[in-house]
Amino acid sequence: MSSHADPIQRLIEEFGKLPGVGPRTAERFAFYILKEEKKEAMKLAQAVSEVKHKIKSCSICHNLTDIDPCRICKDPRRERSVICVVEEPSSVSAIEKTRRFKGLYHVLLGTLSPLKGIGPDELKISDLTSRIKKQKITEVIIATDSDAEGEATASYLTKLLKPLKVKVTRPARGIPVGGTLELAGQETIAKAFEARTEVK
Amino acid sequence: MSSHADPIQRLIEEFGKLPGVGPRTAERFAFYILKEEKKEAMKLAQAVSEVKHKIKSCSICHNLTDIDPCRICKDPRRERSVICVVEEPSSVSAIEKTRRFKGLYHVLLGTLSPLKGIGPDELKISDLTSRIKKQKITEVIIATDSDAEGEATASYLTKLLKPLKVKVTRPARGIPVGGTLELAGQETIAKAFEARTEVK
Repeated sequence: MSSHADPIQRLIEEFGKLPGVGPRTAERFAFYILKEEKKEAMKLAQAVSEVKHKIKSCSICHNLTDIDPCRICKDPRRERSVICVVEEPSSVSAIEKTRRFKGLYHVLLGTLSPLKGIGPDELKISDLTSRIKKQKITEVIIATDSDAEGEATASYLTKLLKPLKVKVTRPARGIPVGGTLELAGQETIAKAFEARTEVK
Repeated sequence: MSSHADPIQRLIEEFGKLPGVGPRTAERFAFYILKEEKKEAMKLAQAVSEVKHKIKSCSICHNLTDIDPCRICKDPRRERSVICVVEEPSSVSAIEKTRRFKGLYHVLLGTLSPLKGIGPDELKISDLTSRIKKQKITEVIIATDSDAEGEATASYLTKLLKPLKVKVTRPARGIPVGGTLELAGQETIAKAFEARTEVK
């Protein structure tokens, strides 16, 4: 039996679901919330609720956004001939922080993973090919993660996109092999984008 | 300027207020919430809201509770002659997990701290002395933290409670169980030697 009142126990459990948060940290978070002013603490509840109610997928690039199309797809200053393909919205955020990439994005919302039953139809791949066919895209940078699933997805995409007469590139290794974009430093990501190489 | 939509940015900021959470971790938490099913993610918002609306201070011991008096103060199986004084509700939770202490608690909701303008009137000290005077309390265990403020608070309480003819004790200082002498501080080692016990 837990020594906590039920609502406290439930809060500890919910915090414990966050990535990398063990029971002790979850308890620390809960006691922080308990100690905070009600108004302050409720800001977290409101922020969670707000993102779940207001944030959706951009109908063009599938990045997370509160307006559709998203700010990047709508921005007239972005280079509209280059698309960077990433696995998740968190990768867009990591790349945007470097302020080096001026093109557009396409978020696959996952990677190919036969073991998990995720094939091309489960990802936003057909949307990507239609974007390339419809618009004057000159280069597609495949910036999937550098792990097994990310590499497999990149290979698949390369084969698929080559016949569309578009230059297909990948960011240089500079991203630690086996690591994820999200955790790589900004400079590493920036360097990898500068030294991207064409896939032949 | 942040590359995130405003609601995402706000969620990252709120997560960043949690103890020990830096900007990167806050962002990871936010993307976790963004990726979760709406129903699942809303459980966190609801849990935060629930604790802030349902949890209050017990009117007797000032521990956090959803019923008043709290479960411990109401429990007929607890030893009603011993009170353990702690700084915060999180200490009650830490002690309860050991399942060894069967007495009651009194939460001060802070420590004496002249620098922060916290004197005896800002803590739940007068409530403690009236509990001792009204009920048959035989022992008060002062389990404030072992840092400067906790020690100062313990000294103050000891002087205050002694004239009430109650036995005042403090938990033993010593080498943590499983800890090494090398990693224990000099003061801890000194205290552990002073309070050494005979092996029979």
